Amino acid sequence: MMKSTKAEGKLIIVEGVDGSGKSTQIRLLEKWLRYAGVPVFFTEWNSSEQVKEIISKGKKRNLLTPTTFSLLHATDFAARYERNILPLLRAGYVVLADRYIYTAFARDVVRGCSPEWVRHVYGFAVKPDLAFYFRVPVEISFDRIVKNRPKLKYYEAGMDLNLSNDPYESYRIFQGRIVEQYESMVEKEGFTVIDGTVDIEEQQKHVRQKVMEMLPRQRNQRAVAK
Amino acid sequence: MMKSTKAEGKLIIVEGVDGSGKSTQIRLLEKWLRYAGVPVFFTEWNSSEQVKEIISKGKKRNLLTPTTFSLLHATDFAARYERNILPLLRAGYVVLADRYIYTAFARDVVRGCSPEWVRHVYGFAVKPDLAFYFRVPVEISFDRIVKNRPKLKYYEAGMDLNLSNDPYESYRIFQGRIVEQYESMVEKEGFTVIDGTVDIEEQQKHVRQKVMEMLPRQRNQRAVAK
Repeated sequence: MMKSTKAEGKLIIVEGVDGSGKSTQIRLLEKWLRYAGVPVFFTEWNSSEQVKEIISKGKKRNLLTPTTFSLLHATDFAARYERNILPLLRAGYVVLADRYIYTAFARDVVRGCSPEWVRHVYGFAVKPDLAFYFRVPVEISFDRIVKNRPKLKYYEAGMDLNLSNDPYESYRIFQGRIVEQYESMVEKEGFTVIDGTVDIEEQQKHVRQKVMEMLPRQRNQRAVAK
Repeated sequence: MMKSTKAEGKLIIVEGVDGSGKSTQIRLLEKWLRYAGVPVFFTEWNSSEQVKEIISKGKKRNLLTPTTFSLLHATDFAARYERNILPLLRAGYVVLADRYIYTAFARDVVRGCSPEWVRHVYGFAVKPDLAFYFRVPVEISFDRIVKNRPKLKYYEAGMDLNLSNDPYESYRIFQGRIVEQYESMVEKEGFTVIDGTVDIEEQQKHVRQKVMEMLPRQRNQRAVAK
């Protein structure tokens, strides 16, 4: 099944911890591409209608184990992958994904799943054409998130890992471990690293540059013409 | 995670198509073991409270793809495995499972998933100590099921596979393919084959014989004493 004949489309994904600025950047990229007339589809982690509900219920009741947590997210991803991502790639779209399989590789492993097992579960997914990783020190992403949120959610803070009874301390440790996982993937997975601490405009310039290098000439020119 | 220190417990599972008689047999086995004072836990496929609902919803709306279908069942299994099966094996129970990972291996592959992928997804599960496979010709299991049911459900009949517009014909073809998958596993997975066409009592005698050979001496003797 699902053998990857991607045809014309391109898959561009962003990864990084919460507060790394990746969502801001991919939304800016989306606008820019649309403005240039490129057919774009945007998709984000944990958003399939079918699976969202049960994940949210399981979270509320703290019923999930690392394996069920991982498999539910994989189900959500598979639903979006088979219904949206793959067909649209085949139809020639530029598909933009806010988080991709590497989010699972990082989070699930921190939660205790075997790295090989998680990679096998997501074995059906194609590699992206361009994977941006937004690198920021944990203290900075932590400040960005905590400032905007009066309360951290149980799983968001990694409270299921028993790292600390204080949600903020737990979150800080949890995010630190996720950063470690991301960093260990940078080379192996061929991430394009963006410095998430510099100006939003500066980052976006870098992102667009990389995208232009990759897009087929025709689109490239149209994009440049704007 | 989940490395398999099974300790004292024993895992006995039954497999076979619907109408093969496996559920009748494992229930009889359960009663016999309980009567003999053996600590028994019974679990069946697709029964985790958390996941049941979403599978049933997805089925109603015919929203599932082979991959999401497979992953949802894996989630259900993982929930039961981590919360019940593994802890009870560790506590020394005899765990009886009506369908185990081989059901997924058979069904998901017939639905189009890669055999290797499905096996990896279930890679966290221990091998059973005893795996009974109830072998019956498709015509017999078909008659048993169809007699008791005025209508076949969409997924039950394998209608998602577009084998036939007639649910009964689709079901017959679907079950035939599942039997092929089971048969291909008999040797490799070390199934104990039970002839599902003979008397219920005759089958049960065979089943108990195999279970007695496997259970530790002490229990064995208590069971025999009855």
